[in-house]
Amino acid sequence: MAVSNIRYGAGVTKEVGMDLQNMGAKNVCLMTDKNLSQLPPVQTVMDSFVKNSINFKVYDNVRVEPTDRSFMEAIEFARRGAFDAYVAMGGGSTIDTCKAANLYASSPDSDFLDYVNAPIGKGKPVTVPLKPLIAVPTTSGTGSETTGVAIFDYERLKVKTGIASRAIKPTLGLIDPLHTLYMPERVIANSGFDVLCHALESYTALPYHMRSPCPANPISRPAYQGSNPISDIWAVHALRIVAKYLKRAVRNPDDLEARSNMHLASAFAGIGFGNAGVHLCHGMSYPISGLVKTYKAKDYNVDHPLVPHGLSVVLTSPAVFTFTAQMSPEHHLEMAEILGADTRTARIPDAGPVLADTLRKFLFDLDVDDGLAAIGYSKADIPALVKGTLPQERVTKLAPRPQSEEDLSALFEASMKLY
Amino acid sequence: MAVSNIRYGAGVTKEVGMDLQNMGAKNVCLMTDKNLSQLPPVQTVMDSFVKNSINFKVYDNVRVEPTDRSFMEAIEFARRGAFDAYVAMGGGSTIDTCKAANLYASSPDSDFLDYVNAPIGKGKPVTVPLKPLIAVPTTSGTGSETTGVAIFDYERLKVKTGIASRAIKPTLGLIDPLHTLYMPERVIANSGFDVLCHALESYTALPYHMRSPCPANPISRPAYQGSNPISDIWAVHALRIVAKYLKRAVRNPDDLEARSNMHLASAFAGIGFGNAGVHLCHGMSYPISGLVKTYKAKDYNVDHPLVPHGLSVVLTSPAVFTFTAQMSPEHHLEMAEILGADTRTARIPDAGPVLADTLRKFLFDLDVDDGLAAIGYSKADIPALVKGTLPQERVTKLAPRPQSEEDLSALFEASMKLY
Ligand SMILES: NC(=O)c1ccc[n+]([C@@H]2O[C@H](COP(=O)([O-])OP(=O)(O)OC[C@H]3O[C@@H](n4cnc5c(N)ncnc54)[C@H](O)[C@@H]3O)[C@@H](O)[C@H]2O)c1
Ligand SMILES: NC(=O)c1ccc[n+]([C@@H]2O[C@H](COP(=O)([O-])OP(=O)(O)OC[C@H]3O[C@@H](n4cnc5c(N)ncnc54)[C@H](O)[C@@H]3O)[C@@H](O)[C@H]2O)c1
Ligand SMILES: [Fe+2]
Ligand SMILES: [Fe+2]
Repeated sequence: MAVSNIRYGAGVTKEVGMDLQNMGAKNVCLMTDKNLSQLPPVQTVMDSFVKNSINFKVYDNVRVEPTDRSFMEAIEFARRGAFDAYVAMGGGSTIDTCKAANLYASSPDSDFLDYVNAPIGKGKPVTVPLKPLIAVPTTSGTGSETTGVAIFDYERLKVKTGIASRAIKPTLGLIDPLHTLYMPERVIANSGFDVLCHALESYTALPYHMRSPCPANPISRPAYQGSNPISDIWAVHALRIVAKYLKRAVRNPDDLEARSNMHLASAFAGIGFGNAGVHLCHGMSYPISGLVKTYKAKDYNVDHPLVPHGLSVVLTSPAVFTFTAQMSPEHHLEMAEILGADTRTARIPDAGPVLADTLRKFLFDLDVDDGLAAIGYSKADIPALVKGTLPQERVTKLAPRPQSEEDLSALFEASMKLY
Repeated sequence: MAVSNIRYGAGVTKEVGMDLQNMGAKNVCLMTDKNLSQLPPVQTVMDSFVKNSINFKVYDNVRVEPTDRSFMEAIEFARRGAFDAYVAMGGGSTIDTCKAANLYASSPDSDFLDYVNAPIGKGKPVTVPLKPLIAVPTTSGTGSETTGVAIFDYERLKVKTGIASRAIKPTLGLIDPLHTLYMPERVIANSGFDVLCHALESYTALPYHMRSPCPANPISRPAYQGSNPISDIWAVHALRIVAKYLKRAVRNPDDLEARSNMHLASAFAGIGFGNAGVHLCHGMSYPISGLVKTYKAKDYNVDHPLVPHGLSVVLTSPAVFTFTAQMSPEHHLEMAEILGADTRTARIPDAGPVLADTLRKFLFDLDVDDGLAAIGYSKADIPALVKGTLPQERVTKLAPRPQSEEDLSALFEASMKLY
């Protein structure tokens, strides 16, 4: 299990200028997206820069749900700027883009595919030193401030993939709940579903001692190592918070208590899955968002079709946990109970259906689209969705139960309609 | 919050040679104590060095419950050896000694008191870079593999104090339960009480937002920041494990399940208190062990009088939590319940006595000496014990309730006899 440095509290963002000064930074890159750059949180960061005499340049061209092209553009900016530190303020899209910019600006001779996960990229280990990166999350979802992962859509293949290395983990995460008050309803809901799936998937991932191959040399082991007693604590705790606070956070824009708790849960779940890994909901989500047709996500202030990440992972969750339940039925029942199910009379073979029903009810209560069909997919798309899942073996092999192509087809089919 | 780098598993110690190779270490210092150097765990480390062609020198002169003199001796060895990495294999005494050796060998011009906590030392911040230190704990107690703390007995004042800086936190902790099978009964019991108190104290410490002063610049804030939602998770989880496994671990030398769980709990509680801090049991324990007269601890293979650290902290715990309960009665009741008390009919004002009784029963069941009187103290010693507690304000000020000298006297007096 590896280090994540975080500082939590209402207002901690104001300290970012001092943190940069302490790091000796003289020329800082502030990354964000075009929507956020108009909102007060970004102003808070810039005020802190000014107050601490930090020179900075702003890059606000981050794409929501980034692509290789949008990563490249940010990398170009970073290479030209020769920055000595980075601040990423935004959701996972911004933090991930900034991780990539820092990595490739620190490794000027690398080709873009060098560090991208195999089999799409070469998956080279990172050996160059990076600049400090401070992440200030504004969504309560990805936990990207705690992980060594950066996800993007590889446009040529229309599939999401990413870069995974402990080296790109942010130096510091500033978890400031004040920013969450600006999130519109669907952004808090969808990013909350991401937390939900991080917790559910990391808790049910293949146990660490069953993962194979297990490289003899510790340096060659992946960051995602399977579920383990430490990640379990984070997962269960994050799930309890989701159960208690997500609905409140979605329904009441100024419920600071609920939104603060979700903001912490996002980091907790991040530390959990950042060590244990995620599996099928995430593996299958990458083609679901990569192959998006015309779906426009409510409350997302962007001009391109988009299946938000949290929505793309949660829509398959009832099917996925029905499929995996037989591998650890007690864990599945425990999660259903945390999410509010009465499991006193549930029998072991019911674990999958009980959890799936609990999830369906949870999603229904939060007005989630009725399955993949509601976001524009039909049976005819299933072969392409399966094909897009196959290269995601970095995560899918962490599923507790192996999957054939037929299994994947059946999972997509079962996710077409939820209610 | 900084989470620590740890690797857990039966046999992970065998990988230490590879880890050193990955770090590029060519000249390694292996620290341990004279008792452990005769036991199989140290052999495992040396075998791994040999297998990976790592040059090393052994220092096995660590003193159990170290002093400034024993620290200085290890520092001398480290300075002469010009090592490029350290491996500390042992309990808190060894890991703490190795942290100090690494620090002062990396800072050759420093006086010993420079980095020692104020008011005894100068409490200077560490700005020199240290060498990598891999800690392999063999007790299930201090969690020193996860903390930036090194404790020693300052002989001139007959009081324990320490060095506290994130800079001395080990680079990596290898948590290998196989070593725990060699611990004699009292070593596992006493080190388990240390875990118990780390959990109880960090969970009840002053909440982080009530701590003062709060230095404006993050770099000046102490590692001990008060209880917070993250350290709470570690504390509660560690306490649950102590409740479930400590008795089994003490009573059955080969109950690997129980001992493995305690070994993890020790690291968990360490991550918790390493961020939140401890308070009165620890603050008051420093004179209790510093002023030891003739008490010889059973099962400790040493030739000097000694009150083991875990014993010195736990003996005051019933009195301390009776004193602090009014500040957070629900938390105190929750801990009593985790430790097995039936709290269904308990009222808020009962929280202190309920937890204290639960602790007394727990200690009685584990054959703990009947209070400070049983380890050689009498009423006449109380002024000296109080005097030795006063300079421990680094921890005592984290107590949820302020204490006068009279309060401290009363706490020592109430701890003279337990049953
Ligand atoms: N690195 C990781 O570990 C990891 C994990 C999961 C997901 N991801 C990736 O993260 C991306 C999704 O990130 P996300 O869900 O955090 O959202 P996002 O960054 O894509 O942002 C979504 C939208 O919300 C807006 N927004 C963000 N914060 C706001 C606030 N406080 N107030 C108002 N509007 C706000 C943004 O401007 C944007 O329009 C995906 O690309 C996904 O694949 C990464
Ligand atoms: N740095 C921190 O965060 C921290 C926290 C709490 C306590 N401490 C300090 O740690 C010290 C106490 O450390 P400890 O309780 O871990 O014990 P220890 O290191 O003092 O060792 C106690 C005895 O147990 C023996 N021993 C250790 N492991 C063994 C094994 N596996 N098999 C057989 N014998 C074994 C040792 O040889 C020694 O004789 C004290 O000085 C205390 O103040 C430090
Ligand atoms: Fe995700
Ligand atoms: Fe301790």
